[in-house]
Amino acid sequence: MAADKQPIDFWFDFLSPFGYLGSIQIEKLAAEHGREVRWRPTLLGVMVMNVMKLPAVPATPLKGPYSGRERNRLFGYFGVKLDPFGDGGLPPLPAIRTFTWLNMTDPALAKQFGQALYRAHWSEATDVTTPEAVAAFAHERFGLARSDVIAAIDDPAVKDALKASVGAALETGVFGVPTFVIDGERFWGNERLPMIERLLATGDLAPA
Amino acid sequence: MAADKQPIDFWFDFLSPFGYLGSIQIEKLAAEHGREVRWRPTLLGVMVMNVMKLPAVPATPLKGPYSGRERNRLFGYFGVKLDPFGDGGLPPLPAIRTFTWLNMTDPALAKQFGQALYRAHWSEATDVTTPEAVAAFAHERFGLARSDVIAAIDDPAVKDALKASVGAALETGVFGVPTFVIDGERFWGNERLPMIERLLATGDLAPA
Repeated sequence: MAADKQPIDFWFDFLSPFGYLGSIQIEKLAAEHGREVRWRPTLLGVMVMNVMKLPAVPATPLKGPYSGRERNRLFGYFGVKLDPFGDGGLPPLPAIRTFTWLNMTDPALAKQFGQALYRAHWSEATDVTTPEAVAAFAHERFGLARSDVIAAIDDPAVKDALKASVGAALETGVFGVPTFVIDGERFWGNERLPMIERLLATGDLAPA
Repeated sequence: MAADKQPIDFWFDFLSPFGYLGSIQIEKLAAEHGREVRWRPTLLGVMVMNVMKLPAVPATPLKGPYSGRERNRLFGYFGVKLDPFGDGGLPPLPAIRTFTWLNMTDPALAKQFGQALYRAHWSEATDVTTPEAVAAFAHERFGLARSDVIAAIDDPAVKDALKASVGAALETGVFGVPTFVIDGERFWGNERLPMIERLLATGDLAPA
């Protein structure tokens, strides 16, 4: 299994701070073990509310307050700066459609955009919550034409590509962000990174 | 914080295989760091279905199948034998009321009973699903009179003590099993054990 060196699938949605932390950690782990990471967009809202029929975590009794605390301390645990824009809320469509658009022709650029956008929203208090803000960000950081970004966010082909990606997430059994898929094995959440590390290192989940 | 050496609260329900794994891991970690572990019973069904108004995890789309796989591989990851009684289902009341009864007068014995019962159900395919089966188990392993156990399982004082414990769990914000509370900090799930280890070792969650 370890000899294959298949890419790791990283399923994400920009709205999740846990996805941001996962994006940093999985790239580190993958680099240490000679794997590529393929960024695959999904929509948490579709998975949780439409398919699982669950309330959003922040609105869930008991779990909501815990999750808020977990977010704050997990940034501390991984040594990542937490300085979100506004109250942290991020309507994901403008950002994730821009990612999807870039990903259709240049996955490497799309990943760089994704990494920078995650960091901007969660660590640099930078506004990427609207089509105009995402277009300005993509222009300033990556030299993209604002009008191209605005057009892409509303492009039916981009919307279809994102829908197909969400469909693929559901087919894979993805229900949360981040989800890492390694050699067919799904891992939900940053808390499974030690398991992933053992799997990457030994090709097995059991103790040596 | 680390200087206090307060006991660690371990919130559990026998029906959870993750609780069983957590009971083993937290005792190891606590022993390494000079802490006691206080076993505190709760009822997953009350927390999840009555308070959070969520379906049980096995009945949740996407998450249910994932959780089944996670259970199996987590036993492998921790090197614990998975050999459940029947299909793994464990109506928890007979077992947890017996624990609660013992815990009212002898917490050390209650813990030993809890450890043995968890192991019996999840690693030794032993029936502890009914009052009669729990009474037989308590008699064979701990020399308790079967009639005392049967009486305890139906004792209003024991039921009240368990209700009070579930109430304390909810007041603490416990919503899943296992939950570990260390110096006021809650950790849900075995996946947070590396965070707990860092907290116990350094008194802090951030990287050294």
